[in-house]
Amino acid sequence: MRIIVQKFGGTSLATPAYRDLVAERVLAATRRSLLPIVVVSAMGRAGDPYATDTLLELGRQVGADDAPRETDLLMACGEIISAVVLAGTLRRKGLPALVLTGGQAGIVTDRNFANARILRVQPDHLRRHLDRGDVCVVAGFQGMAETGDITTLGRGGSDTTAAALAVAVRAELVEIYTDVSGVKTADPRIVPEARTLSMLSYEEIFQMAQQGAKVVHPRAVELAMRANVPVRVRSTFDDPEQEPGTLITHGFEADTQWDAPARVVTGVTHLAHVVLCSLDGPLDHASTVRVFRLLADAGISVDLINVAPDRRRFIVAGGDAARARRLLEDTGFSVQFNPDCAKVSVVGTGMRGVPGVMASVVEALADEGIPILQTADSHVTISCLVTRADMERAVQALHRKFLLDAHAARTAD
Amino acid sequence: MRIIVQKFGGTSLATPAYRDLVAERVLAATRRSLLPIVVVSAMGRAGDPYATDTLLELGRQVGADDAPRETDLLMACGEIISAVVLAGTLRRKGLPALVLTGGQAGIVTDRNFANARILRVQPDHLRRHLDRGDVCVVAGFQGMAETGDITTLGRGGSDTTAAALAVAVRAELVEIYTDVSGVKTADPRIVPEARTLSMLSYEEIFQMAQQGAKVVHPRAVELAMRANVPVRVRSTFDDPEQEPGTLITHGFEADTQWDAPARVVTGVTHLAHVVLCSLDGPLDHASTVRVFRLLADAGISVDLINVAPDRRRFIVAGGDAARARRLLEDTGFSVQFNPDCAKVSVVGTGMRGVPGVMASVVEALADEGIPILQTADSHVTISCLVTRADMERAVQALHRKFLLDAHAARTAD
Repeated sequence: MRIIVQKFGGTSLATPAYRDLVAERVLAATRRSLLPIVVVSAMGRAGDPYATDTLLELGRQVGADDAPRETDLLMACGEIISAVVLAGTLRRKGLPALVLTGGQAGIVTDRNFANARILRVQPDHLRRHLDRGDVCVVAGFQGMAETGDITTLGRGGSDTTAAALAVAVRAELVEIYTDVSGVKTADPRIVPEARTLSMLSYEEIFQMAQQGAKVVHPRAVELAMRANVPVRVRSTFDDPEQEPGTLITHGFEADTQWDAPARVVTGVTHLAHVVLCSLDGPLDHASTVRVFRLLADAGISVDLINVAPDRRRFIVAGGDAARARRLLEDTGFSVQFNPDCAKVSVVGTGMRGVPGVMASVVEALADEGIPILQTADSHVTISCLVTRADMERAVQALHRKFLLDAHAARTAD
Repeated sequence: MRIIVQKFGGTSLATPAYRDLVAERVLAATRRSLLPIVVVSAMGRAGDPYATDTLLELGRQVGADDAPRETDLLMACGEIISAVVLAGTLRRKGLPALVLTGGQAGIVTDRNFANARILRVQPDHLRRHLDRGDVCVVAGFQGMAETGDITTLGRGGSDTTAAALAVAVRAELVEIYTDVSGVKTADPRIVPEARTLSMLSYEEIFQMAQQGAKVVHPRAVELAMRANVPVRVRSTFDDPEQEPGTLITHGFEADTQWDAPARVVTGVTHLAHVVLCSLDGPLDHASTVRVFRLLADAGISVDLINVAPDRRRFIVAGGDAARARRLLEDTGFSVQFNPDCAKVSVVGTGMRGVPGVMASVVEALADEGIPILQTADSHVTISCLVTRADMERAVQALHRKFLLDAHAARTAD
């Protein structure tokens, strides 16, 4: 049995006309002799009645936000409604569709409401339906704890549902349908000439997602990667023949150069609102530990960390900055905050072992007169902190440097 | 046809008694209905007559080091001798063994002598032998350019040969036989209580190798990873029933927690001889570019890079430091060098998204009174630069902090 998991985002499900398109994509899979499992997000965007944010706000209005268990129960309804609506559409098109909640599909989670983690997948029920040839429409973003409580999976939850089910039933492909044509070399709002990547590796999409690209959630990529299930990101609204989207695999292709990938940099990403925190001057060890522990205990992620004897610098997300400041200042630390920062990154597994990529990054920004406030590099990512005002130009400069001139991309020169 | 690639390092081939053990390991594979491809390194260690370093020295004595093409030809003999000797041993044990050079096995490289890169593998010849049931003993570390020139693959070359052949013939496993029992949680010479890891992911071994662990070469891991071929690292000298070694895969196991790996840190690694280079004070952009470009053009890798408006700091390998200093000072830069440094790193895919790992790293070193000169972190690795004198204690402290107390490893606390 050849199984495909097809995940549709909220925009793709927002109107009857869109849902007809979605049904077309599901029917197309069955015509290719694939048995689809369909995973859905809540319909529409914030403001639409069944969207996650709307339900959350509704809960807030009635005080349900004090009861995390009930907030999750409420939010889970968004995807269930979506699933019921889509299953109806599919049945009208002649497909034997039925709805499963996350729990019914076998997603077992811990009881960490609002951000539950999947402990395992028990796909027995799902499998019985697949054996019968049923098209299961699964409510994404949700699971069930062993206690029977309905939970939600937090950000990227529906992608995670799709990947987890694909792994559990050994699907041959996960298709993530969204409203963009695939993974781009940069954000097209900043770089109009950004291209859709036809292929990239799990590790690259993982890094790009970590560094700000918002297409597939890293948790979903990690699950698919570990089980070696290919993921295709594409738009519901594109002609499937014309626009195949982006295929994400381990990246091994017969025609790839074995030992010397030609593409040094795959994409340029950015995080628009980050805050540079500096604790300069000497500081005893215990205090340094205290700083990081305080932030970790408050669930605040730090990044671009630089600890040296005379300084401790790091960035936090814009949304966490006020809380980080309060925490640190309340504890008596003197912290400088530079709120108008952005992180721009170049990502590519092809830069492994290729000398001079950092030189090219610095050069691209230097040519534009853009000061670099801080850097970080791993073997597949180089990130620079710049001012928010310089961000767009920095992304454009890096995109130009590495991607548009094919020769430059090849030699990192 | 179920194929296994078995690679044996120089120590494993050094004596007749050891080669009998190697033959045992090959016979054991055939008893499991696997068809082995055997890849060998040059016999023995530096000083032994056919070891790579000995042949290199021999070439140097006759001035062959001025002729890179002939040096490669000479070095390639080490593995060919090894292959012929082992094939003879295998035939005496009743196996239909024969020798293939790298070129005969289909390893096609560029003409970058001494450090050639594999362009492709043409396994037709190898396949014909496999179809006949022959046990091919392939000389590792070498290939052939399209011009017919014999080339060598540089560091980790035999591991790379093994992985490339496994990918080309779709082997179900690569076994790397060495003189240690597998991949350890830390260097046992520094941490006597270091454990052998029974399982880890490609990405972890890749990071560990980059950060100083010397078991499998990163190039080989990357090839295996991209083609999803599992790699097992084990000792020729262990009882195979008792000591299965370390299995390297994408890391997905039915009994793994799906979404929440229990192991935050997998291992602690170190690089003993690195030099911190500091160009402090203001410096114009063009000069910063110049610094990195000079080093890149000279093939000098830089790491732990920190570029900020008032400083540019990075490390280079101890062996590159004198050259880096000369290059930079000759060009008029004023550079401070701190030669007595070491890099210690904790590696683990389990640290993704887990807050507080950096706090724990700083804490572990603080508790020992070890100053941190610089830090770098990616999502799966945190590295600290310390003085060489503090290195052993730093590795021990981190190993204790993350690995020995099971609860601590679980919560990163």
